[in-house]
Amino acid sequence: MNLILLTQDDVNDSRLARVRDPRRLAHLRQVHRAQQGDVMTLGIENGPLGRGTLLSLDEDEACFDVSGLDQAPPEALPVHLVLALPRPRMLARSIEHATALGVKHITLLHSRRVEKSYWQSPELDPAKIHQHLVLGLEQARDTRMPTVDTARGFRPFVEDRLPTLLEGRRGLLAHPGMPQACPRGIDDSVVLLIGPEGGFIDWEVEQMLAAGCEGIHLGQRILRVETAVTALLARLF
Amino acid sequence: MNLILLTQDDVNDSRLARVRDPRRLAHLRQVHRAQQGDVMTLGIENGPLGRGTLLSLDEDEACFDVSGLDQAPPEALPVHLVLALPRPRMLARSIEHATALGVKHITLLHSRRVEKSYWQSPELDPAKIHQHLVLGLEQARDTRMPTVDTARGFRPFVEDRLPTLLEGRRGLLAHPGMPQACPRGIDDSVVLLIGPEGGFIDWEVEQMLAAGCEGIHLGQRILRVETAVTALLARLF
Repeated sequence: MNLILLTQDDVNDSRLARVRDPRRLAHLRQVHRAQQGDVMTLGIENGPLGRGTLLSLDEDEACFDVSGLDQAPPEALPVHLVLALPRPRMLARSIEHATALGVKHITLLHSRRVEKSYWQSPELDPAKIHQHLVLGLEQARDTRMPTVDTARGFRPFVEDRLPTLLEGRRGLLAHPGMPQACPRGIDDSVVLLIGPEGGFIDWEVEQMLAAGCEGIHLGQRILRVETAVTALLARLF
Repeated sequence: MNLILLTQDDVNDSRLARVRDPRRLAHLRQVHRAQQGDVMTLGIENGPLGRGTLLSLDEDEACFDVSGLDQAPPEALPVHLVLALPRPRMLARSIEHATALGVKHITLLHSRRVEKSYWQSPELDPAKIHQHLVLGLEQARDTRMPTVDTARGFRPFVEDRLPTLLEGRRGLLAHPGMPQACPRGIDDSVVLLIGPEGGFIDWEVEQMLAAGCEGIHLGQRILRVETAVTALLARLF
């Protein structure tokens, strides 16, 4: 936790924020060994960040002075990440990596090689996903909360949603064996599509290319989804 | 397991390999649902890879025909990774990511902000490390086994070993706040140094810069070690 992320609800006037949930209180005590008077890095969800003083800390509440938060959060990546739903543990880590790297829009997509059972995982509970988004933001000292949605049918996604997503954006389909190496250091707005373990099936690849995506690859090595997410984002931007 | 990695010991003549350890046997049965006659991707540690037939599979042994293995493993990255020892779970994942991406030389370094207890972790057991290296190779369909060693004193490392490592190599110290952005797509041989959570201390940074390293950064965001390892390697090479 390189930043203590406060919600808009924590802030009860423009100057004070009160934290009452056990996770952050425990973290303040055990990891930060926080004490009254400490000056810490604080941020308000979808708001500013900066340094603020811990005014009080007891069993049930930490109270911060947030009047000095005047910095903008770091720049977001201009990317909408479309990720074939990974298995649950991988999903959690992929969301944290992507969030820490600055992704603000994530769509979890069904595709043929996504195991149907993954859609029943408790990791898809919005509260769980929110927790991983918070961890990613706290890690990277960011305050802008990403949005995560799902597309549980591949065909409706590619026929109805993808064309809209691609308006004004460059579609990049990361898939082993595609002809073009992943471009480096681009400035474009991008829709980045990443397949499941085992990859998209040929028909799915054809549909995405037909919709206007460019196929890109990261070389001969087959990477786990979470490694590929980070590697692609780091190389692209 | 995108490749079944056989040791030199598994291969008892130039044509046959026998696998007897429970991990790979269980994986063959449960994940691959392997059956006699299946043609699978096989590789021999520090040797060739290719397609080979599963000749037999019983309780205690799988026997493969390896006479057709004639491909070279994918290219290695020209990098010696020096990683301040991360906490145990992060160490395991960082080693797997780095190995999957093609790193062949890893040195685990002590530095001021490395918790001393990490050096007592069972994750440092050579057998455990070997297991993570194997997982990384199997993931990326590689056969060349990386070497991992330790440098348990920062000063002896920077005074005695680093100068030798830097002969003919470009030293890149990844550290937040350094003036130069991480370069992209370079061809140089590199020694890449990555600090612990909380970073190298100023004195350590000075020592490494004085030894001839260039300081580089990945932007304003603070990344977890495992995310930084992947992001740096993907951007550099």
